[in-house]
Amino acid sequence: MTWSPANPESVFTYGAPALKFGAGAADEIGHDLLALGARRVLVVTDAGVLATGWPERVAEGIRGSGLEAVVHDSAHVEPTDASLVAAADRARADGPFDGYVAVGGGSSIDTAKAVDLLLSDGGDLMDYVNAPVGAGRAPSRPLAPLVAVPTTTGTGAESTTICVLDVLALKVKTGISHVRLRPSLAVVDPRLTASQPSGVTASAGMDILCHALESWTARPFASYERKQPGERVPYCGSNPISDMWSERAMSLLAKAFRTAVRDGSDEGARGDMALAATFAGLGFGNAGVHVPHANAYPIAGRVRDFHPEGYPHDEPMVPHGMAVALTAPEAFRWTFEADPERHLAAARLLDPEHGPRWAAEPRDVLPGVLADLLRDIGMPNGLHAVGYGEGDVDDLVEGALKQQRLLATSPREVGAGDLAGIVTRSLQLWD
Amino acid sequence: MTWSPANPESVFTYGAPALKFGAGAADEIGHDLLALGARRVLVVTDAGVLATGWPERVAEGIRGSGLEAVVHDSAHVEPTDASLVAAADRARADGPFDGYVAVGGGSSIDTAKAVDLLLSDGGDLMDYVNAPVGAGRAPSRPLAPLVAVPTTTGTGAESTTICVLDVLALKVKTGISHVRLRPSLAVVDPRLTASQPSGVTASAGMDILCHALESWTARPFASYERKQPGERVPYCGSNPISDMWSERAMSLLAKAFRTAVRDGSDEGARGDMALAATFAGLGFGNAGVHVPHANAYPIAGRVRDFHPEGYPHDEPMVPHGMAVALTAPEAFRWTFEADPERHLAAARLLDPEHGPRWAAEPRDVLPGVLADLLRDIGMPNGLHAVGYGEGDVDDLVEGALKQQRLLATSPREVGAGDLAGIVTRSLQLWD
Repeated sequence: MTWSPANPESVFTYGAPALKFGAGAADEIGHDLLALGARRVLVVTDAGVLATGWPERVAEGIRGSGLEAVVHDSAHVEPTDASLVAAADRARADGPFDGYVAVGGGSSIDTAKAVDLLLSDGGDLMDYVNAPVGAGRAPSRPLAPLVAVPTTTGTGAESTTICVLDVLALKVKTGISHVRLRPSLAVVDPRLTASQPSGVTASAGMDILCHALESWTARPFASYERKQPGERVPYCGSNPISDMWSERAMSLLAKAFRTAVRDGSDEGARGDMALAATFAGLGFGNAGVHVPHANAYPIAGRVRDFHPEGYPHDEPMVPHGMAVALTAPEAFRWTFEADPERHLAAARLLDPEHGPRWAAEPRDVLPGVLADLLRDIGMPNGLHAVGYGEGDVDDLVEGALKQQRLLATSPREVGAGDLAGIVTRSLQLWD
Repeated sequence: MTWSPANPESVFTYGAPALKFGAGAADEIGHDLLALGARRVLVVTDAGVLATGWPERVAEGIRGSGLEAVVHDSAHVEPTDASLVAAADRARADGPFDGYVAVGGGSSIDTAKAVDLLLSDGGDLMDYVNAPVGAGRAPSRPLAPLVAVPTTTGTGAESTTICVLDVLALKVKTGISHVRLRPSLAVVDPRLTASQPSGVTASAGMDILCHALESWTARPFASYERKQPGERVPYCGSNPISDMWSERAMSLLAKAFRTAVRDGSDEGARGDMALAATFAGLGFGNAGVHVPHANAYPIAGRVRDFHPEGYPHDEPMVPHGMAVALTAPEAFRWTFEADPERHLAAARLLDPEHGPRWAAEPRDVLPGVLADLLRDIGMPNGLHAVGYGEGDVDDLVEGALKQQRLLATSPREVGAGDLAGIVTRSLQLWD
């Protein structure tokens, strides 16, 4: 253990939305909204998800319970300050609403969080954005109930207290983070992920895996100095509860991930992936994530012309899960020494059959297991394959260093040199 | 599997309070209440817990954050309709309050739930009591925030949606059950259980164990006919999430239970018991409990003159956990055939070293593991030892049959004959 706090933390916290899980769950949301006290709700989605028909179907179900429901495809994939303000303006024009439903991926769910915040608590978006980019103001009262209905088995946004956004003028990715942003209820209905293309299942699945693995290896809560109550943050480091969710998510992934990518119609695998996403979300929503997620911000944000399969082709993008995955093998080779046994335990969970990678040096086992998985599910072979070269390393490191909120849960203290090593070694992951 | 629903349930639900766990957590409640929007709170406890000084210490901490706090020792051990009405009347006289804190065991927490309900929603107690005893009315609005601070490592009341009470005139134990009764936050601080006598650790620990084991063996959620949304109940049968909590709770008990009974000053064991109680509560608060808990109601309710060690001697009592434990070995011998592998898995979790009981017939392994534990921690040798004989069996069965809400999660359909067999074989548990 590299940490030796003078007055070690003895307390950890845990919070989660209520959960309704299973095929058919999305048809019951009207009843759930009534129980939450809502009567007129806004369904927030994006144009792509709207085209699947699910948001209208969910809205129809809500109307069937006697509530009013309005659908806005106001979520921008990767929300920006401009897109969130526009979504809030559109909601204000059609309001008032006393409940919100997000149907979509992390972008829709995060947009609904921001709309709920701005309409429930007033003020400008930048008032609430994390300091120093914004004023970091806390909402002064509970928000209206938000029901999150994820349509990709990945982001975990249904479990978290954060809304991620790009501030366009500053070219920075940041967030709004407060416990009141956590949805009241997550409705996880595996039917909504049935149409997910294989490439999306692969990228989103790597997001799940890294949520679990980064939580599992996160700096332990008891290794921090004791916090005053007002200093506590939702992400408190690895702890007995987040460990449990992470372990279970990794076991589900070991069983279902490759199958779900190969055959999207396999209902068992799809259900297991939805459950893994939920479990990992419940874990990292409390423990936190670290190096691979910090690296993912600039990797996604500085994309030039990569166009992944399964995603819209109008704008270049490195999908979030892919951006997280690409430095994961090298990040976990670097974190290994913080807790070798935990890294080997994760490798055992992810590769229960002990494949050939187990002949390697202990620190290389988990990176090997991850590289095999990346190759099997069709991920690009490192950062080079998505358009980055040696000349981009400093830029990527500078972007990752801005994510101090995430790097604070790294199991080793991390500096520019460490990140440069990880990023450089991630340019190509296998021969 | 004995169930074959025509249209099987595909949905399960999960809810839980937010959690703050660890030594020192009870000193931060003022901050947590402010975040929940409270300004003037009532601390509910009982006379026994009041004498430990913890309720006043918690109230002082709350006042230190600038809130008002009033302490009432208004909880009766095993609440009755009369005690709950008296507690609500006393609260009304000192009110209004916009937040509640329960410091104590299940009785204090359940009393606070009822006081919060009656003062937040109006009406009479019997309006809300489960039908057919009461009118079964649902609260019409969210209650004021309730922070539950358990001082015994057992009941799980901090996680559940129910308030248990005796209706004196009808001589029946029943409850008020609604999702709005679930506390907003559970603060589990192992320091508060430090003064717990060994006998209380043993009884309360058996309550934890049976929460975990009954949830783990509860009728699976998918074995029920599909429910309409309005028919869903908080206790939905065993499911992937409750299974996870139950398994983890059993592993913690295997490690810590005997040690915690033997040496109450062992901080590691006490922490593990507090964590096990929390985990088991999070499991059974969603899956449900069944035969041992149903039997426990009349076993505790019809006590004549048993006075257990470690409890107040003024009234005869069979403590709740002891009442649950006494028919557990025989109940699990009877449920074995519903899912042999699950019963053996539980025995492995509780007895990871595979003691001599594993030489028995498979159906006898788990009962044997439980009987060994009961003997080791000083539980009475069956119902006979707490004052019941052959002549009481019909009476106890009649009482257990009234707990249809619990028996509905039994993994086998259960009738009077089954219960009579279990109760009779529980008169003496070992030679």
